[in-house]
Amino acid sequence: MQVWLEKRRPGQGKFVTQRQEPDAVTILSGVFEDARTDGQVTTGTPISMMIENIDQRSRDYSDIAQAFRPGHADYAYFAKYGVRDYRGGGRASARETAARVAAGAVARKILSGVTIRGAVVQIGPHAVNRDRFDWDQTHENPFWCPDPDTVPIWEAHLDSIRKAGSSTGAVVEVEALGVPAGWGAPIYGKLDAELAAALMSINAAKGVEIGAGFGSAALTGEENADEMRWGNDGPLFLSNHAGGILGGISSGQPVVARVAFKPTSSILTLRKTISEAGDEVDLRTKAAMIPALACAPCRWSRR
Amino acid sequence: MQVWLEKRRPGQGKFVTQRQEPDAVTILSGVFEDARTDGQVTTGTPISMMIENIDQRSRDYSDIAQAFRPGHADYAYFAKYGVRDYRGGGRASARETAARVAAGAVARKILSGVTIRGAVVQIGPHAVNRDRFDWDQTHENPFWCPDPDTVPIWEAHLDSIRKAGSSTGAVVEVEALGVPAGWGAPIYGKLDAELAAALMSINAAKGVEIGAGFGSAALTGEENADEMRWGNDGPLFLSNHAGGILGGISSGQPVVARVAFKPTSSILTLRKTISEAGDEVDLRTKAAMIPALACAPCRWSRR
Amino acid sequence: MQVWLEKRRPGQGKFVTQRQEPDAVTILSGVFEDARTDGQVTTGTPISMMIENIDQRSRDYSDIAQAFRPGHADYAYFAKYGVRDYRGGGRASARETAARVAAGAVARKILSGVTIRGAVVQIGPHAVNRDRFDWDQTHENPFWCPDPDTVPIWEAHLDSIRKAGSSTGAVVEVEALGVPAGWGAPIYGKLDAELAAALMSINAAKGVEIGAGFGSAALTGEENADEMRWGNDGPLFLSNHAGGILGGISSGQPVVARVAFKPTSSILTLRKTISEAGDEVDLRTKAAMIPALACAPCRWSRR
Amino acid sequence: MQVWLEKRRPGQGKFVTQRQEPDAVTILSGVFEDARTDGQVTTGTPISMMIENIDQRSRDYSDIAQAFRPGHADYAYFAKYGVRDYRGGGRASARETAARVAAGAVARKILSGVTIRGAVVQIGPHAVNRDRFDWDQTHENPFWCPDPDTVPIWEAHLDSIRKAGSSTGAVVEVEALGVPAGWGAPIYGKLDAELAAALMSINAAKGVEIGAGFGSAALTGEENADEMRWGNDGPLFLSNHAGGILGGISSGQPVVARVAFKPTSSILTLRKTISEAGDEVDLRTKAAMIPALACAPCRWSRR
Repeated sequence: MQVWLEKRRPGQGKFVTQRQEPDAVTILSGVFEDARTDGQVTTGTPISMMIENIDQRSRDYSDIAQAFRPGHADYAYFAKYGVRDYRGGGRASARETAARVAAGAVARKILSGVTIRGAVVQIGPHAVNRDRFDWDQTHENPFWCPDPDTVPIWEAHLDSIRKAGSSTGAVVEVEALGVPAGWGAPIYGKLDAELAAALMSINAAKGVEIGAGFGSAALTGEENADEMRWGNDGPLFLSNHAGGILGGISSGQPVVARVAFKPTSSILTLRKTISEAGDEVDLRTKAAMIPALACAPCRWSRR
Repeated sequence: MQVWLEKRRPGQGKFVTQRQEPDAVTILSGVFEDARTDGQVTTGTPISMMIENIDQRSRDYSDIAQAFRPGHADYAYFAKYGVRDYRGGGRASARETAARVAAGAVARKILSGVTIRGAVVQIGPHAVNRDRFDWDQTHENPFWCPDPDTVPIWEAHLDSIRKAGSSTGAVVEVEALGVPAGWGAPIYGKLDAELAAALMSINAAKGVEIGAGFGSAALTGEENADEMRWGNDGPLFLSNHAGGILGGISSGQPVVARVAFKPTSSILTLRKTISEAGDEVDLRTKAAMIPALACAPCRWSRR
Repeated sequence: MQVWLEKRRPGQGKFVTQRQEPDAVTILSGVFEDARTDGQVTTGTPISMMIENIDQRSRDYSDIAQAFRPGHADYAYFAKYGVRDYRGGGRASARETAARVAAGAVARKILSGVTIRGAVVQIGPHAVNRDRFDWDQTHENPFWCPDPDTVPIWEAHLDSIRKAGSSTGAVVEVEALGVPAGWGAPIYGKLDAELAAALMSINAAKGVEIGAGFGSAALTGEENADEMRWGNDGPLFLSNHAGGILGGISSGQPVVARVAFKPTSSILTLRKTISEAGDEVDLRTKAAMIPALACAPCRWSRR
Repeated sequence: MQVWLEKRRPGQGKFVTQRQEPDAVTILSGVFEDARTDGQVTTGTPISMMIENIDQRSRDYSDIAQAFRPGHADYAYFAKYGVRDYRGGGRASARETAARVAAGAVARKILSGVTIRGAVVQIGPHAVNRDRFDWDQTHENPFWCPDPDTVPIWEAHLDSIRKAGSSTGAVVEVEALGVPAGWGAPIYGKLDAELAAALMSINAAKGVEIGAGFGSAALTGEENADEMRWGNDGPLFLSNHAGGILGGISSGQPVVARVAFKPTSSILTLRKTISEAGDEVDLRTKAAMIPALACAPCRWSRR
């Protein structure tokens, strides 16, 4: 589990946010070990884990305590609850993804036989060339980029974004191999609907696609529908525009999803906003998290 | 309610499927009327509605009873359950959206003050020109198209699709005006996550966007984050890239979502597939539903 | 399914309510049959059933439309919703148990290997003698009474209740044989907690016991804790005070529960109550349902 | 919150278990305080609390690691999961009620206007005399006994139980005053069904009653149905056999429930049981928790 958390943790390179968050996870319940078990085993009861938030306690939040950071959830929380915990963004903080990484590490233990892998397929306006898509390349560069020719383009883009004190968005692709046919249920428990909710609930996500996604709108029925033949190991699809899901149920093909993340709204430029007191102010969100946010989710899905 | 069902019902023009489905809805419970009530009132208990499926009973399903229609959920259902109800697609039938229309009509009664409207913004590869986007135009043509100059382009496209016995996809945009700030909840009940699940669960949906959506990945933080000022009626956002949702909570701006639909897989061309018996066969799905599928959701969201 | 509904249906003897309710159930979805299936099979998707309420439409509800029947849910519904459907008691009608019988018939199909049986063990103040408890006797008398010597006592009691235009309560015992060890889950999904909720949700239920129930409060630890030995087929309990559930999880012993039902509040005596209009009135609930209510649940649980 | 936990904590008298459990609760999330708030306020997001389990770590569990304690959940857990955490009973430990006390303290803050109070109304075979029932007396003796004349009877009973190394059961009565009419919902969210589940889910609970409970089975309809008149503050019930709930919805009367607890199965007598290894053994559960278990729930409900 800690392996995945280390992958997620920001501050590991010049391209990502410099916040230091030692994400040490403690397992509170649900596992057990004695002389008869072969190491730690689950007890069948809920596994409870805790990651303490150390970084945020000592920071200075006086600016954002008064005004709503534009692009952040500050105003929406205040409008809903009448009070907000402005330290580190509260529950809307991107640090929340640390909990997903920890839970994902447990999920990987359960999903033996299923391989889940992720890649960043677009940063800013620069998408990878899918003809050069190579999963192995995602381990060879700091961007989890599957296309080596795109790496220098992203480097230049991020350098210019960093110098401008700005931020940039990204698209992440996740693929699950080895999912058997039959996961998901009609109408109320559709696999694609549940994936869409899960992915859209990641901080900063603004779009979700399955398979051909928005591109499928431009296709004809002949182009889109994946034909079938018999292979050596059973049914064989001749393409995968469906992204492995038909009628909300997995088809046995790889499940493919993409998520679009907006650029973090923590930038060094002064921005127009309003304060709780009713003033119009200009605010600079001090701790710029240049594209860490965009990269966090891919750590979640990295194998 | 019947008004909305009539709008959804296929077979109303040469461009949409010719199936006749008299979608008469019966309210089974949850409403009450006596001399003291001003017409029918809800009792506070669940409203149960029934739409009988008349059309499908008399049809000939012998072909698709044996083989899996490519692009449909036939194989996924069979892999999951070992049996499938092939009459009309079972629970994966696009007719399921009739239930959503009926439920939506009830929801509209509850959401007084909220205006929900929809438009088709792309058919096949042809997107509307957003500079000419005019909601009023959606009532002036059979495609719920907000851009009059796009109407003839879609007509030509659909004519050619129809002649080819093919089908085409579409993108629908839905907008909710008057949503107050504060809907949705952090982490587990995010408004955007729930909308994503709801929209992705519509038959044939393959992608969902909120606000700037996938486009936000290409923006900088300055471009994307919506600045704020005070307006006459309270906080005023200077743009709406967020699509009305921040941190999973509504901000008071219009909630904007888009859904991509794949082309229906019921086409007149022979397609490669396999049968339950283990054969490789070529199948033509008889009842082509040329772009009815793509249009159905917009009826759901029409005002 | 109809077999069980016939057992539940009132009006089958002089001792129970004379209302005629033809409980014909229609299966709306979830089952399928073609030449390849061996009769009707489930499709894996939800089974929806409908029982139409015919009896109540033509009755005269003018009295109870104005005043709250004491002991019934009339006032509570009105206080909650500000409106109530007084025809037949609305959702608080004992006819609601017909839906439980229909659903229970489906559940029995699923729970092959589990035998569920019920008995009435007390009517009014007259409990059966447990030394004479014989499950086979429950089929030999109209009261599902397991003790033949108690039958004439109940007959006399019910005759006097009927002549007085009054009603009486009852206790029903339900037993599930063949439940394997391991059903239920700790803390949030305890089997006894879920059974307690299910049984308490039956109309007129006021108490639920598992195993020794309230009697266990009077026992010592030695008397109460069920000792264990090895039997021919695995662990063997030497008694069953636990009623087959320990820590919220089934132990492999018979699961035993009892439910207490209050007497129906529909009686022929004038009772003090108030009206919606603010008056103090005396009301006689016309359609006395002498102990039908008490017997309905046992039909639900009859094998 | 700590006030209630102190009331729950065992080891406070000679009559209850001598285990020392310093139940210190830590609030992990959901509250916030700054210069503008008047002390700690809730943020609207989940309140997470943690009570560390210190006592159990150093104990010797070698006996019960091998054999199943009769009357405990050991065997049921093992049958379900194939592994069990025997330290302190795992999730089936009566210490779990500490979490309920902590959560209950939060619930009390929310339910302003509602007074919740509890009393022990029976220990072993000795029930209180309800004619002498006086809520104020529950604070005057170590048994939360509402009847002073019963106190010496319980003292003698518990002394004899303690000397015998045995244990005894109890019945607890809980009353909620000030519950407005209208809580609970028909069929699926009945207030009595939810209370029954909640109370039955407390460790060692074997029975739950609402209002007249099992006693209502012996009543006639005239005796049981609570008549109504108009009082100064609205509808007035002339009795409360219903325990404040009609049709699953609160009526505005006090909500009254009783729970029966079995005697703890941790006693000093050797008891027959079996071991994981397949042996028949006699086991003495070392740490006898004489009637602590029975008293724990009343602490939960004490005002």
